[in-house]
Amino acid sequence: MADEQEKQKIGDVMATWMRATIDGDLETVLTLMHDDVVFLLPGRPVMRGREAFAAASRPTLGKVRFEGKLEIQEIRIAGEFAYCWSYLAVTVTPLDGGASKQRAGNILSIFHKQPDGHWLLYRDANLLTAV
Amino acid sequence: MADEQEKQKIGDVMATWMRATIDGDLETVLTLMHDDVVFLLPGRPVMRGREAFAAASRPTLGKVRFEGKLEIQEIRIAGEFAYCWSYLAVTVTPLDGGASKQRAGNILSIFHKQPDGHWLLYRDANLLTAV
Repeated sequence: MADEQEKQKIGDVMATWMRATIDGDLETVLTLMHDDVVFLLPGRPVMRGREAFAAASRPTLGKVRFEGKLEIQEIRIAGEFAYCWSYLAVTVTPLDGGASKQRAGNILSIFHKQPDGHWLLYRDANLLTAV
Repeated sequence: MADEQEKQKIGDVMATWMRATIDGDLETVLTLMHDDVVFLLPGRPVMRGREAFAAASRPTLGKVRFEGKLEIQEIRIAGEFAYCWSYLAVTVTPLDGGASKQRAGNILSIFHKQPDGHWLLYRDANLLTAV
């Protein structure tokens, strides 16, 4: 089924995002989101645009070790849009020897298919909280 | 545009939901969600199914005054699915004289169009936190 192929492509985007985050490869992560991406987070202002994500990510780049386990719960394709419900558990450890922090929770993401066939993250509600 | 009509229908569902919640009319709220609805909340387990929502709602029914302001930020239609990004600020006041609690935050919702043309809430990531 064509939808299964599209679901696989979105699963690949999620897996690439995790791998690049673990590797501290911000440039690759930035290629996986739409210019006009919107990140919604509990208790924090809306973060809008790829550049805002980059600016928020750069201060910790190379200063933490990131480990995570991503479980995709559901992906539904609807034309050029799709949603993905996933569960993510992460451990972030400062490389300067500070204490690790664990966070976990669900994520509801909207992907938008581009004219070239790539799926980009478009809207993202991240419900991770401290464990 | 046909999409504009569908967006209006989803806006109407959101408005009806708010009104029914303010009125303590749980039965109406339950008609606005899919049997297999999933609610995602920060720091809490997944709540799945209309019956789980009903069970979670009944204990406070008629015991609180609910006031709220809903601002729809974006609705996108994609075939029989749609997403809605909204911002909600609520004040919940116990009728027994306890202190009011204020909560606010973004909500990312997925709606699923039924064969009869009605849109039902299908997935919901609620990022409200205490103000």
